[in-house]
Amino acid sequence: MHHDTTFVDDLGLDPDQISVADADREQRSHDWGTAREDGVRPDVVVWPESTADVASIMRAATEHGVPVTPYAAGTSLEGNAVPIHGGITLDMTRMDAVLDVRPDDLQVDVQPGILGDDVNEAVAKHGLFLPALPSSGAISTIGGMLANDASGMKTVKYGEVSDWVLGMEVVLPTGEVITTGSRAVKTSSGYDLGDIIVGSEGTLGVITRVTIKLAGRPAQVRGGRAHFETLDDAANAVFDAVRSGVDVAKIELIDRLSAAMSNAHLDTDLPDVPMVFVEFHANHGIEEEIDFCRSVFEAHNVTSFEVAENDRGMDELWAARRELAEALEPYETHLSPLTPGDVTVPISEYPGIIRYAKELAEAEDFLIPCFGHAGDGNLHYAVMVDKDDPDHVARGKEVSRKIVERAIELGGTSTGEHGIGLGKQDYLVAEHGEAAVDAMRSIKKALDPAGIMNPGKVFDGPDT
Amino acid sequence: MHHDTTFVDDLGLDPDQISVADADREQRSHDWGTAREDGVRPDVVVWPESTADVASIMRAATEHGVPVTPYAAGTSLEGNAVPIHGGITLDMTRMDAVLDVRPDDLQVDVQPGILGDDVNEAVAKHGLFLPALPSSGAISTIGGMLANDASGMKTVKYGEVSDWVLGMEVVLPTGEVITTGSRAVKTSSGYDLGDIIVGSEGTLGVITRVTIKLAGRPAQVRGGRAHFETLDDAANAVFDAVRSGVDVAKIELIDRLSAAMSNAHLDTDLPDVPMVFVEFHANHGIEEEIDFCRSVFEAHNVTSFEVAENDRGMDELWAARRELAEALEPYETHLSPLTPGDVTVPISEYPGIIRYAKELAEAEDFLIPCFGHAGDGNLHYAVMVDKDDPDHVARGKEVSRKIVERAIELGGTSTGEHGIGLGKQDYLVAEHGEAAVDAMRSIKKALDPAGIMNPGKVFDGPDT
Repeated sequence: MHHDTTFVDDLGLDPDQISVADADREQRSHDWGTAREDGVRPDVVVWPESTADVASIMRAATEHGVPVTPYAAGTSLEGNAVPIHGGITLDMTRMDAVLDVRPDDLQVDVQPGILGDDVNEAVAKHGLFLPALPSSGAISTIGGMLANDASGMKTVKYGEVSDWVLGMEVVLPTGEVITTGSRAVKTSSGYDLGDIIVGSEGTLGVITRVTIKLAGRPAQVRGGRAHFETLDDAANAVFDAVRSGVDVAKIELIDRLSAAMSNAHLDTDLPDVPMVFVEFHANHGIEEEIDFCRSVFEAHNVTSFEVAENDRGMDELWAARRELAEALEPYETHLSPLTPGDVTVPISEYPGIIRYAKELAEAEDFLIPCFGHAGDGNLHYAVMVDKDDPDHVARGKEVSRKIVERAIELGGTSTGEHGIGLGKQDYLVAEHGEAAVDAMRSIKKALDPAGIMNPGKVFDGPDT
Repeated sequence: MHHDTTFVDDLGLDPDQISVADADREQRSHDWGTAREDGVRPDVVVWPESTADVASIMRAATEHGVPVTPYAAGTSLEGNAVPIHGGITLDMTRMDAVLDVRPDDLQVDVQPGILGDDVNEAVAKHGLFLPALPSSGAISTIGGMLANDASGMKTVKYGEVSDWVLGMEVVLPTGEVITTGSRAVKTSSGYDLGDIIVGSEGTLGVITRVTIKLAGRPAQVRGGRAHFETLDDAANAVFDAVRSGVDVAKIELIDRLSAAMSNAHLDTDLPDVPMVFVEFHANHGIEEEIDFCRSVFEAHNVTSFEVAENDRGMDELWAARRELAEALEPYETHLSPLTPGDVTVPISEYPGIIRYAKELAEAEDFLIPCFGHAGDGNLHYAVMVDKDDPDHVARGKEVSRKIVERAIELGGTSTGEHGIGLGKQDYLVAEHGEAAVDAMRSIKKALDPAGIMNPGKVFDGPDT
């Protein structure tokens, strides 16, 4: 779909803030999980440099009825930032400043285009950090994380990224600028508009400033890796650790196949067995916590539990988990992963969902490495397909769909981290019901009457 | 305002679910913070016993354009549940069941009319608890807490009540029943409707079921009380404890006047000095944490820091804080408190806001005991007035207003816990700006097109 976006030239922006060059448009026509598709391109890419820029663009876009899709690092996995209806792509990466550090309040104000790790670099000298970053913190932006309600390895202890947001400045589709929340750590004043902006995937407004709450860096950090003979043992060990209240900052599981793929990729000679990776954060008493964890793992037939004495040792122990994404592709030269799943279930169902995925892999003759943020009941899996074989790809997608449907049956969610975007729209009603989705649509309509804000996401996208 | 509510008789409810008796209507015409006013009464009180009851009442009320105000324990302080436009009061107290305990998932499903402490009683045998309850947990309901985004003493460690809610069932004003969230501990699927229902004070829908996340009870609990010579020392000690990351489960401050009032009320002979009350929760290492806290307090000239060895000792140490609400009224026979304030500021501003309140008390010649959840920057204060002297009451309200305005100037909020209701509507725009309040209104209109859901709250109430 194409739109006349020449009105952008009259908004008083600098020429270098606007591009209709093929390369710029092409680069923002896809994300990490969504292949380039013919015809899907923004008509123009605009780089706002201030809230005022965003407001003037939104005002004009609403007036002209032209779609606007916010875009930053492009690391979304479900097409969340892909401008399927063309129009304006708002590249937020120039709005990447640290605006104000208030160490006494354990707070920092940032612009949305800043990378997660850059926030932590800016506050490290005060002994502070934003603990809930996903492991993509080095390459993904705060704005994108909040738009998609991102989380990650440390969520088991520290919650989601959005749990650390006190307030935001947001430009609504009409160009109105609102602030949400408060610099106080809690408020009961009015509706919490920030909470509806979080996870709305850029369909309700553009985040232009974020006030983040920080935590003190823990004095003690230790990490380790446990081996198990069976996947059931490993999954039950995680379940039991969470249920028993072991204070883990991370607890990650990989199955035998993932271990094998990591071993091959890293050229290491670890056993190809299910593994659980743990990290502990504490100000004191970390040895007691490690011992507590060990006792839980021992009840589930752990065959080895190594805990590193220092950071370097921890990096080594964690390598198989850390490098897993790279290990997945290409595997055995001809197979590559479909967009990884991120279903999440109640923790007691975690051993069941992972068993289901493995049985399905066996029955349908697919390789499906399973891994993920086990302590949250968050299963990542990648169905490995031969991308040159359309039938294999289609069957692989069907297998993936079955895992999602099972997760929803178990009281879980189709997406714990990545959002709906284009790829998960089929599950929205199954998960929430028609009435809830209608209520979401009514809020969309209330805040975006012209329907210009990242149209086709969350709701109403094309089948993909 | 009066409405014809006879249609309620045709909804198939039992006769004992409906009352137009004066006593029943009178009892629900006010809350703890709002005096009875002539003419403010529901036309009928209805006790739903199921989600289906609520849905049929809401459907009919929307059809007839009759206001509906949810009501439960009536412990709100800002008129949040007062039916100022008459109509139907929905008394939720019969929907007080524990529906499902899932200890393996650390979850419980409850109906909204259950008292907070009853949730904890139901899950205690599993070693679990809902840690974020306000201190009114024995007398206030989960539904009311969520509607008003309540929090309390333990928020400094455990967050707000709503942080422990995974999902809800909500009946919208139209009678549609929606579910929000997931039983998974995190989801990025669609807009989080639950987050906009929380804190909406019953203006967007009626909560009919809540899925609550629980925590394991800590193995170690210790409590203590510290005395300081000056309020500045006490306030700075709290500020420094939070900034330094002392892991307190509660950290409460009372000023000299509050201490004196407690002493008089309890007939104890503690010194009339500013006091800080602390409680620690841990699974191990609690002595290290207490020592860490002591070292911080010592840097602020603490004159005494007693820590109890057992629960009974802790109860004794905490009595002056625990009984403070009762100690406030009546004071010196003729003074009684205005509705207590609950302003909340960034923690670095906490010493400043409490100093401001005390200076104002001095300058305006009012007694203003100050206390509260200091670790959150949450200042409670009560302006003591002679309620038989309208001029004194009016001047007292003016003093209270100045404290709220100062809190907002400092980047804080008019209400950290109690909500807007009727009493704080004047501050809504000051705090959020016109554009944000307009956005709130547009969401209200989207979900409650007939405008029947607790009308006049948050927005558009009469001056009080």
